[in-house]
Amino acid sequence: VETGDDEAARELAGRLHPADIADLFEQVGRDQRSDLAAALSELLDGEVLAEMNDFVREDLVDQLDNVQVADLAGNLETDDAVAIIEDMEAGDQREVLSALDPDDRAAIEEALTYPEESAGRVMQRELVAVYENMTVGDVIDYLRDNQDDTLEFWEIFVVDTAHHPVGTCALSWILRTPREFLISDVMKREQTLIPVDMDQEEVALRFKKYGLISAAVTDSSGRLVGVITVDDIVDIISEEAGEDILRLSGAGEGDINQPVSEAYGGRVRWLIANLGTALVASFIISIFGAAIEEMVALAILMPIVASIGGNAGTQTMAVAVRALAMNELTRSNTWRTIRKELTVATLNGATIAILIGIGAGLVFSNWLLGAVIATAMLVNIVVAGLAGVFVPVTLERMDQDPAVASSVFVTMITDSIGFLAFLGLAVAAGLVG
Amino acid sequence: VETGDDEAARELAGRLHPADIADLFEQVGRDQRSDLAAALSELLDGEVLAEMNDFVREDLVDQLDNVQVADLAGNLETDDAVAIIEDMEAGDQREVLSALDPDDRAAIEEALTYPEESAGRVMQRELVAVYENMTVGDVIDYLRDNQDDTLEFWEIFVVDTAHHPVGTCALSWILRTPREFLISDVMKREQTLIPVDMDQEEVALRFKKYGLISAAVTDSSGRLVGVITVDDIVDIISEEAGEDILRLSGAGEGDINQPVSEAYGGRVRWLIANLGTALVASFIISIFGAAIEEMVALAILMPIVASIGGNAGTQTMAVAVRALAMNELTRSNTWRTIRKELTVATLNGATIAILIGIGAGLVFSNWLLGAVIATAMLVNIVVAGLAGVFVPVTLERMDQDPAVASSVFVTMITDSIGFLAFLGLAVAAGLVG
Repeated sequence: VETGDDEAARELAGRLHPADIADLFEQVGRDQRSDLAAALSELLDGEVLAEMNDFVREDLVDQLDNVQVADLAGNLETDDAVAIIEDMEAGDQREVLSALDPDDRAAIEEALTYPEESAGRVMQRELVAVYENMTVGDVIDYLRDNQDDTLEFWEIFVVDTAHHPVGTCALSWILRTPREFLISDVMKREQTLIPVDMDQEEVALRFKKYGLISAAVTDSSGRLVGVITVDDIVDIISEEAGEDILRLSGAGEGDINQPVSEAYGGRVRWLIANLGTALVASFIISIFGAAIEEMVALAILMPIVASIGGNAGTQTMAVAVRALAMNELTRSNTWRTIRKELTVATLNGATIAILIGIGAGLVFSNWLLGAVIATAMLVNIVVAGLAGVFVPVTLERMDQDPAVASSVFVTMITDSIGFLAFLGLAVAAGLVG
Repeated sequence: VETGDDEAARELAGRLHPADIADLFEQVGRDQRSDLAAALSELLDGEVLAEMNDFVREDLVDQLDNVQVADLAGNLETDDAVAIIEDMEAGDQREVLSALDPDDRAAIEEALTYPEESAGRVMQRELVAVYENMTVGDVIDYLRDNQDDTLEFWEIFVVDTAHHPVGTCALSWILRTPREFLISDVMKREQTLIPVDMDQEEVALRFKKYGLISAAVTDSSGRLVGVITVDDIVDIISEEAGEDILRLSGAGEGDINQPVSEAYGGRVRWLIANLGTALVASFIISIFGAAIEEMVALAILMPIVASIGGNAGTQTMAVAVRALAMNELTRSNTWRTIRKELTVATLNGATIAILIGIGAGLVFSNWLLGAVIATAMLVNIVVAGLAGVFVPVTLERMDQDPAVASSVFVTMITDSIGFLAFLGLAVAAGLVG
């Protein structure tokens, strides 16, 4: 499609959903994106930009001039416009803002005053709020008189005269209720209010827990300032869960659309951190240099103890990190979880210890060696199970993201204990030395 | 709360949302759950059960008799009732079904004929469908006349006389439109239809991509049979993303509420698989036994090459698995992604190679050893980068879940190549032997 015929390309793409057009941009290479943008011209609208992968969008926005960006952003709801503008450089951001019309500019500027990834950035200001003394009929008439509004909404928010939210009303209740009823008789008074500075991950957990479709956002004085809708939450949940996978694996903000320089910068730091932990393990091995020279079987077997320990630690750590992210692992069940993981680790450790002990004993015709590796294996898997819970829980209590740093610590512990237990036991058991 | 005073506990819990009561059950130990259930008695309703963690729910349902379960499930929407009943044993399932009233039973039985984790299991049959020749006024009157219905809904579906969906209509459009307009003039004709046998992960990706609130589910003849709402999708997305973390780490269905026996069974299999790959690495080391006896520094340094290679492979693999899960890594950009990962791997490899080469050269006062470990490191990190993309992509093409098996293969490759490159180069360079 991209080889020549712009007219045909435009016609084909014209029938697509903005999300599908955004996909097109993600699928072609970086160098082809501006050609595609030129070919599709006015089909590349704000909606398409809002649907795009962050890295691809940034790339494209860099190529557009600031007045064009302002034009595209101006037609969007606040949250989508903010998503486009927040990643721009300060100078460009100022130019785009000044090219917007004053209402949009004020809304976006205010959103930008809230911390990144907070409710204030994710909310849209476009919402329907009515007073509690209105009847269902009044509300319907009010909505019909505001025809120009293209907003899609699922709930209306009922406020008092000071603009404090007092209830919400799903549209299905309004449709079912005769006109003469008061809206305050139909609305639900209990609602989940989101403070404007709440972290988006916390917001997403509330939506998930209570099955919300939309929720009112309030400022520090409790006034209704915006609404967060579930479609944004779907994106956040999928993003945050993905981030945890990537962080646990040390790939940082990893994304196949991430530029090479950023991917290099993010990942090499992690590899250097791991080089540090590997050096600790090497240092431990070096202490037992003489033992290894005497019995080369130790060098052959030692990576097994460290590596299986590492795997066992990673298993437990993944379960713990996931449970922490879902607010399922709390102060009240930490000890119970640790006891349970200890039981699982002991069972796992005993199973693997028996297998490797018999195997090593047979292969090297040395049952003392088999007993040593079996014991070391059991010790390391149990330690791994404990570390897999303790490390992420401790990081969480220190207000660190457990997904980011846990595996460096857990690997260091399982590597070190693995080599130390195996080589140390070999010496202690009189196998060597 | 759980120590004695049932009355007080019931009163406290009475003010909570069902999701919060479900949390209570998750937070207490297994042995306390039936006491809590007895204390809360009728507060433990179907909604609470639906909100509960799968493992905790199964545990509790086992303790209830089948008539009670039928009673609880009967008050729920189809999808929630199915979630409770699908995990029961066949005999109990039959008893619960026969205790349900015929309509509910038929709906649930039909849902159970669809494959697990398909749209048919997730959808609810409760929905509002109207004919296209109705006016907005007719629709509102129809809704008001069906007062008994407690269903909350966000969109209505417009069908033709054969019950094929022809359009959808957000409630906000209906509220804004005067009564005399035809529903077919207000509705949107383009809609995302979900085939009843589509996998839930695929359904979730569509919801995310198109920002859907609800979507019509159609059977093989294209008739409207149910609706999937976004609140279920939020749960699915969060669950599927979590599954990928756990599978990549070899923790299977891991969950802090999983019983010990299941956790042991799931994890020990993974550890045994990894024992197999570790043995391959050990076999490679054993080939170079003589070299290690001659120069113990090789045994000290070799785990570094394998371990950093493993980390680099895991980084790339996490990015690839994530991109595959999000449908972002497709046939059209696989080669581009591989080329990019190769560039990043070369940069990472060169950086780490220089650091470890200089370090080893200095510590052991042996620059040939430094050059050997630097080269081995570069080779292993580049191989790791390639394996990190190739392995998951190949598994995906073979219709295997890349999250489940990728890390065993990637680790085997990086361990083997790490030891082979380092020890092999040491011999080839004349460092030993």
